[in-house]
Amino acid sequence: MRGTLLYGKGDIRSETLDDPAILEPTDAIIRIAATCVCGSDLWPYRGYRDINEPVPIGHEYCGFVEDVGREVKTIRPGQFVVGSFFASDNTCPHCLNGYQTSCRQVQPIAGAQAQYLRVPHADGTLVATIEKPSDDMLPSLLTTSDVFGTGWFAADAARVKPGNTVVVVGDGAVGLLGVLSAREMGAERIIIMSRHEPRQKLAREFGATDIVAERGEEGVERIKELTKGVGADSTLECVGTQESMLQAIRATRPGGYVSYVGLPHGVRLDGGRLFFTHVHLHGGPAPVRRYLPQLIDMVNEGRVTPGKVFDLTLPLAEVADAYRAMDERRAIKALLMP
Amino acid sequence: MRGTLLYGKGDIRSETLDDPAILEPTDAIIRIAATCVCGSDLWPYRGYRDINEPVPIGHEYCGFVEDVGREVKTIRPGQFVVGSFFASDNTCPHCLNGYQTSCRQVQPIAGAQAQYLRVPHADGTLVATIEKPSDDMLPSLLTTSDVFGTGWFAADAARVKPGNTVVVVGDGAVGLLGVLSAREMGAERIIIMSRHEPRQKLAREFGATDIVAERGEEGVERIKELTKGVGADSTLECVGTQESMLQAIRATRPGGYVSYVGLPHGVRLDGGRLFFTHVHLHGGPAPVRRYLPQLIDMVNEGRVTPGKVFDLTLPLAEVADAYRAMDERRAIKALLMP
Repeated sequence: MRGTLLYGKGDIRSETLDDPAILEPTDAIIRIAATCVCGSDLWPYRGYRDINEPVPIGHEYCGFVEDVGREVKTIRPGQFVVGSFFASDNTCPHCLNGYQTSCRQVQPIAGAQAQYLRVPHADGTLVATIEKPSDDMLPSLLTTSDVFGTGWFAADAARVKPGNTVVVVGDGAVGLLGVLSAREMGAERIIIMSRHEPRQKLAREFGATDIVAERGEEGVERIKELTKGVGADSTLECVGTQESMLQAIRATRPGGYVSYVGLPHGVRLDGGRLFFTHVHLHGGPAPVRRYLPQLIDMVNEGRVTPGKVFDLTLPLAEVADAYRAMDERRAIKALLMP
Repeated sequence: MRGTLLYGKGDIRSETLDDPAILEPTDAIIRIAATCVCGSDLWPYRGYRDINEPVPIGHEYCGFVEDVGREVKTIRPGQFVVGSFFASDNTCPHCLNGYQTSCRQVQPIAGAQAQYLRVPHADGTLVATIEKPSDDMLPSLLTTSDVFGTGWFAADAARVKPGNTVVVVGDGAVGLLGVLSAREMGAERIIIMSRHEPRQKLAREFGATDIVAERGEEGVERIKELTKGVGADSTLECVGTQESMLQAIRATRPGGYVSYVGLPHGVRLDGGRLFFTHVHLHGGPAPVRRYLPQLIDMVNEGRVTPGKVFDLTLPLAEVADAYRAMDERRAIKALLMP
């Protein structure tokens, strides 16, 4: 099959690989209908992780079940499924508590930028859609696998409520879908921090009411001005740097909620300073599995079109171009068709 | 009047000071009926803050209103009142949102270890009790001014709910009253981390079901054993050190709640590590004013006796002995009678 390997910094290749096989009786093999490049894929691509040998990459996927292991009970060959970017059994105490990405048997998905994918804990990880989706539904269904689910978690973890004023830090695909999620949860005012015109435009389409182009201290001042000096009720931190995290915390009112959903890189929080901000802080790898049935329904009903974050579609073989376009911020998010 | 000044590390003196006077039209002057030494008073006493000139100290108080400024509307001379350790107007957006310790006009109370005290924003800060309390009610009423209110906030910020498993890190007066608060909120299991026999005894009296004497890594392991490997639903961090904070976070289940109510000293949180714990984090200076009416009622109804945390009572003039006893952990908390 055709698959994708990351060889090192800036070196990503489309290659012919062995087809994946059932290894555990709880596995399923999926024929990928659509996959994509995640903002978090750019960290290793940019060299933020040591790579000693070529590694399979990609963790967002939807497609058809080809085969299942002998202990798989609810997922059947032929079904169209979407799964979370972390495999989980969905039966342990952490899964039952809604934190499937902290499952006792959690396994990261890797190698989804390919024609076929092995998914562990198939019954726990995959959700079947009612019927085979039409081609134009594929992009939006695919987003529920990670980027929409993560944006939704960001809004949920920041306790967005009807009438709220919400700030979104970050105009990547997750931030943009955080805007969409906040709108769906009834936020009255949604301020996105962005300085990229095409992203601002999509943010407005998804429900943003205000754009703040300033960053750091100035960005925080601007949020304060827009909120009569009070600060946001909820802030979604969708970047993962020290600057974005502090910006999010400082933009939020005392007693307000800050969520953070991008793996923090070099973030250090001073306990004493955090203490006096009085914010609530919650985040982590989004437990997308918790939201999958709901988000798939929203997409199927045509209530939302999160697939609009894909502004570049390429054949899987051109995966290297997809990474380059996202790395250079020429594309918000690249869809790959096997 | 008799008052208390901190001169420097370990040097606290009872002296004759000028009586306080109304400075702002929103002030009140209180004749102190009972005051006490707070765990947080020990930080400057132990030299963790530079002191250039003698400073008045003490911020927990209850007593009779002697005089009020011309703009004070609801508080009247002769009333018996309890107030928060931070003065607040109770009308700004942050106060109305329940975070009076982040009031736009917030002022720390200082100089309460005295016979008289000036309280700014009297209408916002003070709560009058229905009638003059009997002497045996004084200790418990006094605790609502800070230590009980802070323990209650710790339990509330950690979202303690009926049936929960709760861990309390710290066996000082705040931790002990965190135990009491968690019990009042319906926690089923309350595990306190303590290695001091008299404090363990009081913790059990207040509702603790389990005692863990181990600390650090071992302490966390013990909590995991007691919770079938899951971790606590809610953890109250009532110390404020790096070790206690990490212990609290690691004792908590993914998706669980950690509150922190003691001013953190030297606490640094690694964003990447926090991310994978999946905990909710909330804390800060307790907005005691939010809870005062409720806690005063609970004390008046005889439902709780938080005043049991005072295991030493001294005349105000012997304030230096009170600090020494607490510093050496001979006393949990010292009550001072003017």
